[in-house]
Amino acid sequence: MKAQVFIYDTTLRDGTQGEGVSLSVDDKLKIAKKLDQLGVHYIEGGWPGSNPKDMEFFLRAKELNLKHAKITAFGSTRRFGVTAEADANLNMIIESGVEAVAIFGKSWDFHVTEALGTTLEENLNMIYESVRFLKEKGLEVIYDAEHFFDGYKHNPEYALETVRRASEAGADWLALCDTNGGSLPYEISEIVTRVREAVPTPIGIHCHNDSELAVANSLAAVMAGATQVQGTMNGFGERCGNANLISVIPNLQLKMGYACVPDEQLKQLTNTSRYVYEIANISPPNVQAFVGQSAFAHKGGMHVSAILKSADTYEHIKPEAVGNTRRVLVSELSGQSNLLFKAQELNLDLDKNKPEGRAIIQQVKELEHQGYQYEGAEASFELLVRKGLGDYEEVFTVESFKVLMEKAGEQEVMTEATVKINVNGQIVHTVAEGNGPVNALDNALRKAIEAFFPNIKEMYLTDYKVRVLSEQDATASKVRVLVESTRDGHDSWSTVGVSANVIEASWEALLDSMRYALLGRRDEVEDLQPEETERQGILNH
Amino acid sequence: MKAQVFIYDTTLRDGTQGEGVSLSVDDKLKIAKKLDQLGVHYIEGGWPGSNPKDMEFFLRAKELNLKHAKITAFGSTRRFGVTAEADANLNMIIESGVEAVAIFGKSWDFHVTEALGTTLEENLNMIYESVRFLKEKGLEVIYDAEHFFDGYKHNPEYALETVRRASEAGADWLALCDTNGGSLPYEISEIVTRVREAVPTPIGIHCHNDSELAVANSLAAVMAGATQVQGTMNGFGERCGNANLISVIPNLQLKMGYACVPDEQLKQLTNTSRYVYEIANISPPNVQAFVGQSAFAHKGGMHVSAILKSADTYEHIKPEAVGNTRRVLVSELSGQSNLLFKAQELNLDLDKNKPEGRAIIQQVKELEHQGYQYEGAEASFELLVRKGLGDYEEVFTVESFKVLMEKAGEQEVMTEATVKINVNGQIVHTVAEGNGPVNALDNALRKAIEAFFPNIKEMYLTDYKVRVLSEQDATASKVRVLVESTRDGHDSWSTVGVSANVIEASWEALLDSMRYALLGRRDEVEDLQPEETERQGILNH
Repeated sequence: MKAQVFIYDTTLRDGTQGEGVSLSVDDKLKIAKKLDQLGVHYIEGGWPGSNPKDMEFFLRAKELNLKHAKITAFGSTRRFGVTAEADANLNMIIESGVEAVAIFGKSWDFHVTEALGTTLEENLNMIYESVRFLKEKGLEVIYDAEHFFDGYKHNPEYALETVRRASEAGADWLALCDTNGGSLPYEISEIVTRVREAVPTPIGIHCHNDSELAVANSLAAVMAGATQVQGTMNGFGERCGNANLISVIPNLQLKMGYACVPDEQLKQLTNTSRYVYEIANISPPNVQAFVGQSAFAHKGGMHVSAILKSADTYEHIKPEAVGNTRRVLVSELSGQSNLLFKAQELNLDLDKNKPEGRAIIQQVKELEHQGYQYEGAEASFELLVRKGLGDYEEVFTVESFKVLMEKAGEQEVMTEATVKINVNGQIVHTVAEGNGPVNALDNALRKAIEAFFPNIKEMYLTDYKVRVLSEQDATASKVRVLVESTRDGHDSWSTVGVSANVIEASWEALLDSMRYALLGRRDEVEDLQPEETERQGILNH
Repeated sequence: MKAQVFIYDTTLRDGTQGEGVSLSVDDKLKIAKKLDQLGVHYIEGGWPGSNPKDMEFFLRAKELNLKHAKITAFGSTRRFGVTAEADANLNMIIESGVEAVAIFGKSWDFHVTEALGTTLEENLNMIYESVRFLKEKGLEVIYDAEHFFDGYKHNPEYALETVRRASEAGADWLALCDTNGGSLPYEISEIVTRVREAVPTPIGIHCHNDSELAVANSLAAVMAGATQVQGTMNGFGERCGNANLISVIPNLQLKMGYACVPDEQLKQLTNTSRYVYEIANISPPNVQAFVGQSAFAHKGGMHVSAILKSADTYEHIKPEAVGNTRRVLVSELSGQSNLLFKAQELNLDLDKNKPEGRAIIQQVKELEHQGYQYEGAEASFELLVRKGLGDYEEVFTVESFKVLMEKAGEQEVMTEATVKINVNGQIVHTVAEGNGPVNALDNALRKAIEAFFPNIKEMYLTDYKVRVLSEQDATASKVRVLVESTRDGHDSWSTVGVSANVIEASWEALLDSMRYALLGRRDEVEDLQPEETERQGILNH
């Protein structure tokens, strides 16, 4: 039987203190449901007294019928000079109808007198009476000891006395907070041990990442006897964020032998992490531990050839254990083995022993030397391999394009692009404006293709990146453009273009993106609607 | 006297194994210079044997005249079955002319037999002979024990024997690597202690961040006696990256009492971190510990009022210690002091109590809101402040510009730009081609200006960067262009332009660059050569 560590998620409360993190009530409800599926034990939903949005969440959360997690409210100890019974915020917590609550109080003497402006004794009473009041109302009470570690370092007796009072008042948990995120693992370890010796109540840990140590500090606390870890999905939170539960959970469960969430649910970790990014409208960082796109991506040629022999050689866990997948990157640093593996992933029959295989490998190397980079442009890579294998049919060819930009005096820049393509022997000639040359070209190309493939409307660009490749003679040097496209947000693919001319490089990437979107859809070209397109004046016979 | 921990930076080698991290030789040289200024002790520049780019770096790095850091090469132990003397890669290291080298070898028995395919005894010989060969050639040798921790966990005797052989061969350092990034701090601590007991050679630590523990693991190793930390700027590196030196250094130096870099240089930490992001063309994450935009940003109302009373209440260190600044997200008070500080640096008399001072501050805030960023564009900032103070005379004004691009069939793209400017009431109208629209505009503008200021020929662009500001609706979103120019390589200045149109943004930055080059040179306009310019047909009266 593995020892259980309880997971307390505060994405919906502390997480939203992060810069750029903002969640509607609907967003919060969606995330709560997902967290319950993952198997966390507590979901801190907000501070009922602080704003109407948080109160609405608690009222609507009851309809979620969560299977596993307890919806938990957040609040503070009573204000000084009022009784707990008369404290508006404590009463709002009762009103919210939750079964569990975390209330925070001060542990650091300096904070009591400086920030709060009351006496050390009154602070102890505030803690005791608030916890007792909530316990009498039948709630499970987590006492959050704010600034506990800093407080302990300055005045250990007083810090211990604050949690002793919470314990005496009947708190179910004492959650020790490294509020400023400045503590080091050995300090956490030592101080948690001391608290365990001083009070019988189960201990929780709440860390911030200001020293890039929040995960390590959480693990150190568990090793010293804490049985609850507070944190957030992806480490969202004020300043540098909270302890990232997406890393805490697999470390505890896969490496240290604790039970956190059901083993089967651990496979939802990658999916859950990305879901939360999606809802919060934040791009997931590729490098994120365990769940990032790059977490099991291999670039160095030597690593790749070893991985092909045995995955254990360069992977600390099996990617499937957390629902992630292995990837092999194609790049200048890599040898043939990367290329072959990548092709295999794409179900392409690339064989280095066949002449066309060797020709493709040679071509990729030459293109990389010219500045192409395929690790971020898998769609362009697939097109290139398919062409080399003779497994590609061109749906359209480009006859010409033209871009005109003009600015006179204080007027806005006028940008116009014309595109002439050939589909099945018919010339389509379109013109469009845009708020820049690439946008105008994109619009004109799309207009031309739409005449044949109305479904192309689903597709749009989601990212556009430009990189100058060498710095000598800057505006005459080569640029690499990466374009990312999606089909209704469901899937996405990236393409690349390289040229000394930023517009030509962009055009190349746009064309590849369009070609990839049309892969295997050549048959649909029969769905021509010449009358329609003729009416729009874009078809020239 | 504080204990010294030596900082070994491998941004230029292991860092470039990161997905999306790609550095030209020029980029690498710039970063090396910056790292030397920060005060790191070793700069691992690449693997001389692996590709011509890395060898070029080592040859050109000698001209950098670094004050502090040793340029270090990377390589592997000799291949099996050849002598060290005959090993091509080892000889390339000698050829590169470095004074220090890190060579890696296998510590994990499973890797020796599986990935490498040789015997355990031959691996020990490879280590011993390779280290001895390089020592005989007079190099400082860091022996990188790949997979040391995983190897030790599987077969401690063999793992210890590998580093013992390196030590006996004269290695100056044994750098223990957690190559797969799967180890936990208590394991690192225990194993480093065992190695210290077994061999007399100084210990280094090399961690990866696959468990989000690389910083903690590095600190744990130092506490157990390691005196060298290997890592990268911003944690760049394969998969989830390497140990982030930007976090390791201040933790060791500000919290644990070790000396890493000179205290004064620690203030360059934020600046160095952002510089490396800029060169690598990667957006800095706001939440990064110590140096992120949000690292000392206070959002919670309660935090803010406490911070105003005493910064210690919610900050683990003083932001200035690492060159970062406090931000209060509600009031943006900090923006103003930055502006005043920067103006002072440029010897500009910007006073927030005078109306023109207030107007300039207001204008900068509005422009930053639109996407301008003056941190990397001081020349544009200086022009803006001078204009606001009435301390600026326009040398030329732009009447209009036009760009035409055309591509037909397989022909090269034709790009032509025309520029019409007004100098002292005379209209100059020029046309030029270029290998891209920005280059064509640059050529046409230069042609026009040269008629009046022949000296402008000394000036040329050294860098050109484009960043998309928001990801929604990619080709229609705003872009920011940064241009860096120099006058004969002696000094350099940077300017910025923002627009939805990449060409207009570039044009804006080009104009600012030209204006900055002409600052204080309006008198030279008398040196008009109308006959000459008329002969060239570029003057219209």
